[in-house]
Amino acid sequence: MGHEVKRLLINYKTIEEFKNFREYGAAELYMKEDLEENLIENDSESPFYGIYFGKKLVARMSLYRINQKYDRYFEPSQDYLELWKLEVLEAYRGKGYGQSLVNFAKSFKLPIKTNGRVNSNDFWHKMGFTEVTYQPDRDRGENPFVWYPDGVQEQPADQ
Amino acid sequence: MGHEVKRLLINYKTIEEFKNFREYGAAELYMKEDLEENLIENDSESPFYGIYFGKKLVARMSLYRINQKYDRYFEPSQDYLELWKLEVLEAYRGKGYGQSLVNFAKSFKLPIKTNGRVNSNDFWHKMGFTEVTYQPDRDRGENPFVWYPDGVQEQPADQ
Repeated sequence: MGHEVKRLLINYKTIEEFKNFREYGAAELYMKEDLEENLIENDSESPFYGIYFGKKLVARMSLYRINQKYDRYFEPSQDYLELWKLEVLEAYRGKGYGQSLVNFAKSFKLPIKTNGRVNSNDFWHKMGFTEVTYQPDRDRGENPFVWYPDGVQEQPADQ
Repeated sequence: MGHEVKRLLINYKTIEEFKNFREYGAAELYMKEDLEENLIENDSESPFYGIYFGKKLVARMSLYRINQKYDRYFEPSQDYLELWKLEVLEAYRGKGYGQSLVNFAKSFKLPIKTNGRVNSNDFWHKMGFTEVTYQPDRDRGENPFVWYPDGVQEQPADQ
């Protein structure tokens, strides 16, 4: 049994909730400015998904669909999901929120790529992700972990 | 006066020193494997630069020259440096090692782009870096900070 994952809407409540997360940066400020300047409508869909405990957002991630033409990770090449800003508020860790989010990402049946944070290797392995062969010009200091759906494998380096 | 910055050579001593840094990941393991499998020569030049205190490596960064054809940050578009894994060992912080490394990067007179870590904004501002206008498809959850040499400015979004 997982926790219920919701697509987050861009509104002042969401933006306020985001301030509780460690990784609050350019992506969040961009949403805030777009909202303040009426460049986007209130309650537009954001690229973020999250889990609420009661009314409190306690876990979140961002999913971004990358077009096949930019795919340098998967064979056959195809659209894939880039997963970032996976974070569970400290007081809510160890309860499976992170796992529920990643399982939700897998439910799209697309390959997934993420940049593993320091000391996150065990988590990604447990979730069925694998390291790729590091390519300096592609990976630029990242620690890429990928998840392959059935029939998908690593893209050879010389493609 | 800055500290002396050295280009790091790939050898077992360097790789051993890297284990003292928090961000030890795919890039470092790749160097280690290449060395072990004799794919690269001992004492080859690495993309890392560092500062030694006596014989101990206490600060480092990686610099990678990105080809103009991939430049989506600078106007006029040109080769630029991507800076990552800037890190000073905890006991050696507050002594200007980070500043010396960044000033060294600037000495190439190329634009620089980095992904600012959580709570690093003040440091990058102090070093003369600025935020760019966030573009989701380009920046993908990063917090890009850039440094413009004279005559260089931000690349418009629709280029």
